[in-house]
Amino acid sequence: MSDFRTTDDDLSPTNAKLVTPLLTDMYQISMTYAHWKGGRVNDHAVFDLFFRKCPFKGEFALFCGLEEVLRFCHSFRFSESDIVYLKKLMPAADPEFFVWLSQLTCSEVKLYSHREGSIVFPREPLIRVEGPLGITQLLETTLLTLVNFPSLIATNAARMRIAAGPKAECLEFGLRRAQGPDGGISASRYAIMGGFHGTSNVAAGSLFGMDVKGTHAHAYVMSYTGLKDLRTRRLQPAGGGEKVDFVALVLSKRSQLYGGHCTSSDSEMAAFISFAQAFPDGVLALVDTYDTLKSGVPNFISVGLALHDLGYKPRGIRLDSGDLAYLSREARKLFHEADAATGKPVFRDCKIVASNDLDEDTLLGLAVEGHEIDVFGIGTNLVTCLKQPALGCVFKLVEINAQARIKLSEGVEKVVIPGRKAIYRLVGTEGHALFDIIQGVDEPAPVQGERILCRHPFAESKRAIVTPSRVECLLNLVFDGSLGHDHDIVVPLPPLQEIRSYVEAQIKSMRSDHVRSTSATQYKVAVSNNLYTFMHQLWLENAPISEIS
Amino acid sequence: MSDFRTTDDDLSPTNAKLVTPLLTDMYQISMTYAHWKGGRVNDHAVFDLFFRKCPFKGEFALFCGLEEVLRFCHSFRFSESDIVYLKKLMPAADPEFFVWLSQLTCSEVKLYSHREGSIVFPREPLIRVEGPLGITQLLETTLLTLVNFPSLIATNAARMRIAAGPKAECLEFGLRRAQGPDGGISASRYAIMGGFHGTSNVAAGSLFGMDVKGTHAHAYVMSYTGLKDLRTRRLQPAGGGEKVDFVALVLSKRSQLYGGHCTSSDSEMAAFISFAQAFPDGVLALVDTYDTLKSGVPNFISVGLALHDLGYKPRGIRLDSGDLAYLSREARKLFHEADAATGKPVFRDCKIVASNDLDEDTLLGLAVEGHEIDVFGIGTNLVTCLKQPALGCVFKLVEINAQARIKLSEGVEKVVIPGRKAIYRLVGTEGHALFDIIQGVDEPAPVQGERILCRHPFAESKRAIVTPSRVECLLNLVFDGSLGHDHDIVVPLPPLQEIRSYVEAQIKSMRSDHVRSTSATQYKVAVSNNLYTFMHQLWLENAPISEIS
Repeated sequence: MSDFRTTDDDLSPTNAKLVTPLLTDMYQISMTYAHWKGGRVNDHAVFDLFFRKCPFKGEFALFCGLEEVLRFCHSFRFSESDIVYLKKLMPAADPEFFVWLSQLTCSEVKLYSHREGSIVFPREPLIRVEGPLGITQLLETTLLTLVNFPSLIATNAARMRIAAGPKAECLEFGLRRAQGPDGGISASRYAIMGGFHGTSNVAAGSLFGMDVKGTHAHAYVMSYTGLKDLRTRRLQPAGGGEKVDFVALVLSKRSQLYGGHCTSSDSEMAAFISFAQAFPDGVLALVDTYDTLKSGVPNFISVGLALHDLGYKPRGIRLDSGDLAYLSREARKLFHEADAATGKPVFRDCKIVASNDLDEDTLLGLAVEGHEIDVFGIGTNLVTCLKQPALGCVFKLVEINAQARIKLSEGVEKVVIPGRKAIYRLVGTEGHALFDIIQGVDEPAPVQGERILCRHPFAESKRAIVTPSRVECLLNLVFDGSLGHDHDIVVPLPPLQEIRSYVEAQIKSMRSDHVRSTSATQYKVAVSNNLYTFMHQLWLENAPISEIS
Repeated sequence: MSDFRTTDDDLSPTNAKLVTPLLTDMYQISMTYAHWKGGRVNDHAVFDLFFRKCPFKGEFALFCGLEEVLRFCHSFRFSESDIVYLKKLMPAADPEFFVWLSQLTCSEVKLYSHREGSIVFPREPLIRVEGPLGITQLLETTLLTLVNFPSLIATNAARMRIAAGPKAECLEFGLRRAQGPDGGISASRYAIMGGFHGTSNVAAGSLFGMDVKGTHAHAYVMSYTGLKDLRTRRLQPAGGGEKVDFVALVLSKRSQLYGGHCTSSDSEMAAFISFAQAFPDGVLALVDTYDTLKSGVPNFISVGLALHDLGYKPRGIRLDSGDLAYLSREARKLFHEADAATGKPVFRDCKIVASNDLDEDTLLGLAVEGHEIDVFGIGTNLVTCLKQPALGCVFKLVEINAQARIKLSEGVEKVVIPGRKAIYRLVGTEGHALFDIIQGVDEPAPVQGERILCRHPFAESKRAIVTPSRVECLLNLVFDGSLGHDHDIVVPLPPLQEIRSYVEAQIKSMRSDHVRSTSATQYKVAVSNNLYTFMHQLWLENAPISEIS
């Protein structure tokens, strides 16, 4: 309802220039024309949007992208120039069709869906779309585009967070390798949703209000050829007062700690000093341009001690190559040695950031080996979802004019569960989800404390009786066009951080073996006994019987 | 120059809402601030944008994304709201910095690059960026984002085109699995650039003027439960005149051809008939909803014969599951049989389209097995570049204040070739490229007909003397901010089809073993003798000598 937001909120899609009704496959338009010609655009259709297999060889996914789906449906209308273009593509079509098309909106569409950020499982509808065939068919491709990638990224991010362990922070660093500008911005947004703590992507930060992080790159270090490149030697202490010769102070620290046998690079040192002059309270130094342990870390420690003398706090280092587990342990040792030598805890809280081509498996490997990394910066493998770059949601007709439809396929795993369906999550005494059960919308909801028969959708003999301590209805009305343009979105559009917290709670609501990184246990999605019977009957009615002679 | 385009052309980025100076990593802003504080923003820097390894285990890549790079540089300016946001991110920064930043443009930047669509190789600069350190460093992330994905997609598309064989058409069908809306639109655009013939993506078609294709989906077939769903039985002949009972005509064809033992689905038949009523000259039927050979193809043939009687032409079928090689051969056989039975070449020109999870390897496999497919529709594996979802271009400082810079890394393969460099393609008598040679910009260009020593950049003993029949200068000025905002883009921005033709010519300009699908021969990128000597000297000067005792 409109009380969830101020009336002047812009409810167009975030990427409004590209996310229009034209962002679809041509065959959707062709089919709509054929439906229009056939007099069927007002037939009542129900479509389910769902996936068949969890990504990344795991046993869960996160449902994301709902806000953009709602904004799209709210704004759905072909512009005049869209219509002009479509007429060009379909020169033989009846001109009356375009009159109809230009007036088409989602005013008769209803969407039922999970909450954005929900943990979801194969075969259960993520969104149920109801409305006239003419408009609902047209939503397919755009809805898939708006759900597939966000859900994939958020799931990938959540898996990486789990693999990184509860203490480490995860930052998204992938913009440069992302699949286009909006691929990058979506990746940042949905990585945060999935549990990441921040991003390097400034545009994403400005759009969605997330933490933006970043210090400097190798190019910064390399842009200095030596201490002579420093245009000023001075830095003002934190408390104010006379500027001091910061370069001399840093060099004296280096010679005190590392003496004559120091082989650290002076060009690198110049870069760190100049960075400290710009960000005296924000030095997180990239230490691997020349030699991490012989040059980068000693240079950082020297700068850090000088900063400390002036009342500032050094922040830490970033490792971007080599054996991250080993280098992080050795760097931590150098921090401890420096603190022991000076008797002051200057580096006690310093962070070690690691960022070289990390993925879920590397994170798991690091955990096994032991490391001292506080923050992981993850780029390419997060934003491109290297391990599985597409989620594979589909959008299937399950009912037309109140008649359930079933698509027969060779494989049982591709059968679509027919009809308008509700889903309930049955929660156990420990607060963990036990089962999701899908049933017809007209069946009474499961009741807490009462026994309910859960059936495997295809394997006749697999049954369980569950007594839930709590029952959650998972598919709820989120969009109702009939309420009018100003009231069609009937759920709040929560800020990113709120969805992120919900995701965290959702993951905690699962038994840990369902969400663990390797060999996770499958979470069960069952059907009610009624739905089982109905579906198998429909299947038998529709499947041809071969005649063999 | 402005004479390449009318003055009212909009030269902002295609995705102008997202492609702004904020589309970058935070550390670029931090570094720029540190450079500004250090009084170095006007130091003159040269950066190279290049990749180190060809994608998809191949031996070539296509350079794409240049037009968007030029639009971005042309439009580069932080907006007032950008500045407000950055101030929030850097509360401790000197306010004068933001005054400077708000006036920053690319007016002192020069870009030299390959032509968009050029065939390119590892380690050679794709774009050389020259200008003040303060602005050039800020371009890194955005330029990488704008080049990495387009080049990857175009290369993937070109490889798939090669694998599909010279006769087949390739269509891009990936929007629903693309990485976000603009991921999808970019994928369509650059797939066409790489050699695809059309796309299903309507928005991409409207933006870039490419062929848009598509007929209908399984949902269309399933939306019919039987012939009773047809609201009209009639169709007007192509030549005009009285409408005829089209349903009866189709059914009579089916019974003539397939007689009493026909097991084809009536709901499928209803769908095909209604589609033919809407598009009598555009029936390309999806034939695998129920049973491809027992139902889909016979139904299509029956409809096709009826259409033929009325003066229309059936277009063909689409296969979307099963053994595509086998099904396409069998379907073609059914076409031939129908034509033989009726004595008319109704199905002689019908196309067989195939579209189920195709990738480069499947295409190669189909070619080996033998098939009758005319058109491949390729989605997920094209747009997500499953085989390698990121190209990995980097942006490296190679010179500062006229001093060449080198980054030392553990591995020789990661060494950056230092200094401002030109590249020449040396073409042989057959018209095929022989070698690319990189040299310092001040060295005289190779001359056709004259011998030139080409050296491997790292392996001392690997040398060749090449006498080119033709010499092409590959890096040319494309952007010169000093010419003023209205004249800064100094090359034409050719339409998509022109770049596509250029790509085709570029691929043909290579010996076929360099571009073949498997075990391609490496194309050689050499350095001049001068550059070799200079670079190795710089390397020795900068590499530390370990002291061992």
